[in-house]
Amino acid sequence: MPGLVTLLTDFGTRDAFVGIMKGVMLSIDPALRFIDLTHDIPAQAVEIGALVLRSAVGYFPDGTVHLAVVDPGVGTARAPIAVRTDRALLVGPDNGLLAPAVAALGGARAVHVIENAALARQPISRTFHGRDIFAPAAAHLAGGAAIASLGAPRPALTPLALPDAVVAADAVRGVVVYVDRFGNLLTNIDRQAIIAFRQLPLSVRVAEMITVPLRDTYGDVAPGELVALWSSWDTIEIAVRDGSAAARLGVDRGVAVTVTGG
Amino acid sequence: MPGLVTLLTDFGTRDAFVGIMKGVMLSIDPALRFIDLTHDIPAQAVEIGALVLRSAVGYFPDGTVHLAVVDPGVGTARAPIAVRTDRALLVGPDNGLLAPAVAALGGARAVHVIENAALARQPISRTFHGRDIFAPAAAHLAGGAAIASLGAPRPALTPLALPDAVVAADAVRGVVVYVDRFGNLLTNIDRQAIIAFRQLPLSVRVAEMITVPLRDTYGDVAPGELVALWSSWDTIEIAVRDGSAAARLGVDRGVAVTVTGG
Amino acid sequence: MPGLVTLLTDFGTRDAFVGIMKGVMLSIDPALRFIDLTHDIPAQAVEIGALVLRSAVGYFPDGTVHLAVVDPGVGTARAPIAVRTDRALLVGPDNGLLAPAVAALGGARAVHVIENAALARQPISRTFHGRDIFAPAAAHLAGGAAIASLGAPRPALTPLALPDAVVAADAVRGVVVYVDRFGNLLTNIDRQAIIAFRQLPLSVRVAEMITVPLRDTYGDVAPGELVALWSSWDTIEIAVRDGSAAARLGVDRGVAVTVTGG
Repeated sequence: MPGLVTLLTDFGTRDAFVGIMKGVMLSIDPALRFIDLTHDIPAQAVEIGALVLRSAVGYFPDGTVHLAVVDPGVGTARAPIAVRTDRALLVGPDNGLLAPAVAALGGARAVHVIENAALARQPISRTFHGRDIFAPAAAHLAGGAAIASLGAPRPALTPLALPDAVVAADAVRGVVVYVDRFGNLLTNIDRQAIIAFRQLPLSVRVAEMITVPLRDTYGDVAPGELVALWSSWDTIEIAVRDGSAAARLGVDRGVAVTVTGG
Repeated sequence: MPGLVTLLTDFGTRDAFVGIMKGVMLSIDPALRFIDLTHDIPAQAVEIGALVLRSAVGYFPDGTVHLAVVDPGVGTARAPIAVRTDRALLVGPDNGLLAPAVAALGGARAVHVIENAALARQPISRTFHGRDIFAPAAAHLAGGAAIASLGAPRPALTPLALPDAVVAADAVRGVVVYVDRFGNLLTNIDRQAIIAFRQLPLSVRVAEMITVPLRDTYGDVAPGELVALWSSWDTIEIAVRDGSAAARLGVDRGVAVTVTGG
Repeated sequence: MPGLVTLLTDFGTRDAFVGIMKGVMLSIDPALRFIDLTHDIPAQAVEIGALVLRSAVGYFPDGTVHLAVVDPGVGTARAPIAVRTDRALLVGPDNGLLAPAVAALGGARAVHVIENAALARQPISRTFHGRDIFAPAAAHLAGGAAIASLGAPRPALTPLALPDAVVAADAVRGVVVYVDRFGNLLTNIDRQAIIAFRQLPLSVRVAEMITVPLRDTYGDVAPGELVALWSSWDTIEIAVRDGSAAARLGVDRGVAVTVTGG
C-alpha cells in the first residue's frame, strides 16, 4: 500500500497551512494518503495535543507515520525529531508533544534529529517548520526512507510532565485532563489506578462539589443526569447523558476528581 | 476501485474521534478511501443529521458505503444496523438517522442488525460504538463483505417523523427544517407540493411576518434583499442575496412558511 | 497517478456541500483524490479567498487541479472559467478569485469559459454551481480532458484589485491584508518592496500606534512580546510570540503598516 500519514496540529482549518503541508508531501511522494486527526488543538497547547495524539495512534495500521505540529518554540532551539516505535513512526518538535503517544506505542526504538538539509524544503523559513522540515521528513519516511537518513540519533526524546493519578488508602486522586466536544470530562484516572485501589463499588467526586456513581454507560441514567463511566480513553469520565458535564458543573481542565469506595 | 466510505457524525473535529474511526477502518481494509460529509451536526441532533445525510447520498457513485453516527442512545437498546439500497449501503444506529436517506435512494432492499462479534472491535466500549461497531461494519461492507455476514435480517428500519408540507386549497403550509451556513432557510416544501397546489405565480410568507416573491436565483434581487427560490435540496428556500436570511429575520428551524398564489 | 484536485470554498463544513461536490467528481472519475485547502473563507469574501488560494498553489505537484468557489454572483452573469498555467489548472468563477493564484503560477497559458452542457450536471441549479458546473469541470480536467473541451477560449481572466505596497524615499507603506488563525497580521509588503527601499536595519510601524523591530523568528523576542518578521507568505508579518497580535493591538485587515529605516 502507499504510505499513510496522519496529521495533528494547532493550525486550524481557516488558513491553508494544512493543505500546504499535504501539497509539500505529495510533491515528494504523489502516492501518499492522509488522515486528519485534528487541526483544532488550542493554539500552542502542547499538553492537549499530546493527549489527543496519544488517544489515536493505537488505532492505525502498522507502518503509519504520525505527523504532529504544536510548536510554540518554532524557530528556537528545540529540535525537530523523528521517532520509531515497533508499530509506527512519529514526526514533530521535541517539546513533549510526541512522548505520550510513543509510550502508548510501546516506547521508542529509535529517535533521530531531523537535520539533513537535502531532505528539507529550501529555503527553510523561520516560522513554518511544518511545511519546510516536518512535512518533508514525514513524506520521506512514509515513502520508505530510513529514519537514520534524517539525521543523527539521540538517546531519548523530551518527556511531557503529565499529572498522574495518586492512589491512597482512602481514595484515588486525579484531575480532569481534557474536555471533549460533548463537554465530557476526561480524567487521568485509569484502570491501573482503580485496580490498585481495590475497593468496590466506587463513587466519583468532582471539584469537591458533587458525587456521582460509576456506571457502565450513558443509558444507565436518565437524560440530563450526571454519570461517571469508563471513557473511550479507558480512563474515568464524568458526563451528562444527552448534555454537557462541563457546562452543567461550570468546570474545565484541571479540576480535581476523587474516587472513593462506597 | 477500492471501497469508498462517507462519514457523517456529530463528533466535531476538535477531538480525534473521526480520525480514530478511519484508523480502525484502514486496519481492516488499508485500501479504503473516505469522504467527510460533515462532523458538525449539532450534538445528538438526529433529525438535522438525517436531513443533511439525505441531501448528499444521491451524488455518490454506486456502491458507496455511508457511515452515519448521531447517536444519543449509545449504550442503550437501539440497534446498530446496516441497510442495502439499489445503489448504496448505509451503516448507523437505528434511531431514524438513516431513514430519509434510504427513502431518497429508493428504499431498503435489506436491513440487518450489526451483531457479529467477530467483525466488531473487541472489547466493545459502552460509549464509542462509532469506533467499535459502526466503523468496523462499514469497513467490512466497503471491502466487499455481504451484508448478511453482519447479523440477522430485520423487516424494516425505524422511520423518522419529519414534518410534511400540507397542501390546502388556499395555500401550501410548511416549515423551516434547516438553516445552512449562509443563513439560508430551507423548508420542507418540495416541487411535488407546489405541483399539487397548481397556482402561479407564487408568494412565500415567512413567520407570518413578511412575504417574498419566488424567483429563479439570488441575482434576481438586489444585494441585501430577501428572496425565495428553489434550493439545492429542490425545496423552497428563503435567502438574502449576499447575506443571511436567518439573521435578517431573526428566525430559526421550526418557523412557519406559507406559499400562496399571487 | 490518479488526478489530484484541491478545494477552496466559503461553504463551511457544517453542511454537506463540500462532500456533495466530491461525490459528483467521484461519479465522473472514481480514481480522483482530494486535498481541502480550506472551506472557512468568510462567506462571499472573494479577496480573502484569492489570497489564501495564492498562498497554497505553489506547493502542489505539477498537474494539480485547483477548484475554488467563493461566488457571491452565483446565478448572475459572471462566467465560470478554467485556467491553464505551466504547472496547474484552476477552475472557478471569473470574479477575481483565481487571478492572484494564476499570477503566482506564472500567468495564464489559456482561459476557457465552462459552457459545454454535456460535461455539466443536469439540470443546472441556479444556486449551487459548485456542484453542477465547477465540480464536473474540475473532475473532467483532473481525469485528463482538454481544457478546450469545456468551452470557448477567452483572452484573459478578470483581475483582482489588490492593494500594493508603495515604496517612497522615506518609507514603504502597506496594509494588513490577512489575519491568520494565530492572530498574526500578514501585510502586502514583500521582499521586492524592501529590496527597492534599500535601507537597513528596518522598523515596522503598525496602525500609527507602535513600532517593532524586524527580526528573524518568534524566538528572537520574549513570550508575549510583539515582533515583525518574514511570514510564510514571504511578506512582512506582525506577530506576538505565543500570542495574538490582532487581539493585542485590536486591529484587523486594512490597518496601515509602515516600514522605515533605523
